[in-house]
Amino acid sequence: MREVKLSIVGFGVVGRGVAEVVARKRAEIGERFGLDLRIVAVVDLWGAALASDADGGGLDPRRILDALQKGGAEGLSPRESLEAHGVRVEELQSPDVIQEVEHDVTVEATPTNVDNDGEPGTSHILTALKAGRHVVTSNKGPLALHFNKLMQAAKRADRKIGFEATVGGAMPIISLRDTLAGNEILCIKGILNGTCNYILTRMGEENMPFEHALREAQEMGIAEADPRSDVLGVDTAVKLVILANALLGLDAAYKDVRVTGITEITPEALSLARDNGYVIKLIGEVDRDGKLEVAPKLVPETHPLNVGGTLNAALLKTDLAGEVMVVGRGAGGIEAASAIISDIIRIFKN
Amino acid sequence: MREVKLSIVGFGVVGRGVAEVVARKRAEIGERFGLDLRIVAVVDLWGAALASDADGGGLDPRRILDALQKGGAEGLSPRESLEAHGVRVEELQSPDVIQEVEHDVTVEATPTNVDNDGEPGTSHILTALKAGRHVVTSNKGPLALHFNKLMQAAKRADRKIGFEATVGGAMPIISLRDTLAGNEILCIKGILNGTCNYILTRMGEENMPFEHALREAQEMGIAEADPRSDVLGVDTAVKLVILANALLGLDAAYKDVRVTGITEITPEALSLARDNGYVIKLIGEVDRDGKLEVAPKLVPETHPLNVGGTLNAALLKTDLAGEVMVVGRGAGGIEAASAIISDIIRIFKN
Repeated sequence: MREVKLSIVGFGVVGRGVAEVVARKRAEIGERFGLDLRIVAVVDLWGAALASDADGGGLDPRRILDALQKGGAEGLSPRESLEAHGVRVEELQSPDVIQEVEHDVTVEATPTNVDNDGEPGTSHILTALKAGRHVVTSNKGPLALHFNKLMQAAKRADRKIGFEATVGGAMPIISLRDTLAGNEILCIKGILNGTCNYILTRMGEENMPFEHALREAQEMGIAEADPRSDVLGVDTAVKLVILANALLGLDAAYKDVRVTGITEITPEALSLARDNGYVIKLIGEVDRDGKLEVAPKLVPETHPLNVGGTLNAALLKTDLAGEVMVVGRGAGGIEAASAIISDIIRIFKN
Repeated sequence: MREVKLSIVGFGVVGRGVAEVVARKRAEIGERFGLDLRIVAVVDLWGAALASDADGGGLDPRRILDALQKGGAEGLSPRESLEAHGVRVEELQSPDVIQEVEHDVTVEATPTNVDNDGEPGTSHILTALKAGRHVVTSNKGPLALHFNKLMQAAKRADRKIGFEATVGGAMPIISLRDTLAGNEILCIKGILNGTCNYILTRMGEENMPFEHALREAQEMGIAEADPRSDVLGVDTAVKLVILANALLGLDAAYKDVRVTGITEITPEALSLARDNGYVIKLIGEVDRDGKLEVAPKLVPETHPLNVGGTLNAALLKTDLAGEVMVVGRGAGGIEAASAIISDIIRIFKN
């Protein structure tokens, strides 16, 4: 059994999803892959929970999740919650944990930020690589803004960066690089934002104006309180840049994407489309010439890309395999954790 | 640059597809992956074409393909065609080539045979592993009949068996084992036979009886002259067994599958289904309890599995990622070669 020590940097929905999956599947992953996943540090703005010798080399993820949930319900701060359950919390910040706590894989799960140079994610990833850690991340910002710089840093450090979770959540897409290795990928068209897909699906089904569908999505926890990044197409554009660089080998940046969101779409437009056998989807599209575009597009109702609800889908045109399509769940803590844990397993099993 | 020597055993549609792809993409694969693919032997019932010293270590795949095409058009035998173009042909049989000609990867591309213990494919694969070759194959028979035996033989020999091409052609499915490594795959439902899908699609579109749609498919080269393996569901069942063993970790055999084909489906049944918002598809289905079934099933028209024409599709239910779906081209020499070449690249790049 090979011990794989993880730090989780950023303990929001995704970080907690990773802890939850380790709690549920540590034994199974040990049995199937001979890997013993141990969480040695969890760090967020409130400080760092660190494994002590008494923990036998790893934090108990179930205890941490329970502590935060119960403490939160009682109005305690995360730190108070953890300490009340006997978890050691130190004043350490993320870069210190990444550098100083011995571990194999840094799980970078802080929130995406494309306005501020992808920080703090970018620095976390570079620090981790320099310290000899592999990095697995769900954070789109650093990959969208500094793709080639990060890949070069990984190469220099002889470490891997796993980033399947950055695009399409649990939908396999980044790994299609390897799956379709013999192919040139010529073009990608994708529905890469579940919130927009949900809103457009509901507008079409119920003849509902954009604002109503958005409010419904917010009430259901599908859209965020500040939905701008989703509905203006920014999130789709960021993911498109990652796909362009990772799968098409381009050197694209966010500023290269022509972006139109879904805020101007009317129920009338959807109904006119439907009368002609089409639906409207927010499509991110990139080709080998470096044309990157995010915009609402007509999609034939019978086309495989016409997936509903919050699903994500991507269609890849390739030189040998022709068209290949994947569909899956684009969001959710467990879904992102599925991609992260799979990335970790592949780093050690290949 | 690492030289990777290939033998191609069986030079029908798939074997020629592999030669074609090597001809077209050798330089590109060298550049992208640092692998120099060289075909050192091509063997079929007519004998073995072997690289001589004059060939600089590899056969020219373009010359071989051209020779066979031109010679065939002139009524020459394959052997005569090749010799007329200066290719050395020996009386060697496949097992001799596999054992005696030095190479790294045996591409086993002989026709599938499930009635005769998967031979000659099974012996070819075992011989290759024993001789220290990796094996990449499109041949479903050996994998469907002797899955665990072959995997154990590969493990003992410390060699890999790539078999992405056996199911779904160019559609990524076997590799989802790795892509979704952190997941348990709970259940798979798939449209795994493009011929049946084409026939059912056409029957539904044109209100056509089965026999007419079959004849159309034969005229278009989609169905074989003897279509029984496809339309009786045998081909789907064989692929389902491979998926059951490879992705669900079962120890399933062909005889465990309950199989119903599409020969009894009437245009009336399809039209009744359509009036209620359904289509009929030949679905192969397996779950973790080992229930294996191939049968025509109703699929809602709006369901992502409703793909038309000759496409293949598969829906995987997983414990973490939820439902994941893939769609792609299930047949064709270049499509199978896409999977084979990608398997070869992954063997040497991981």
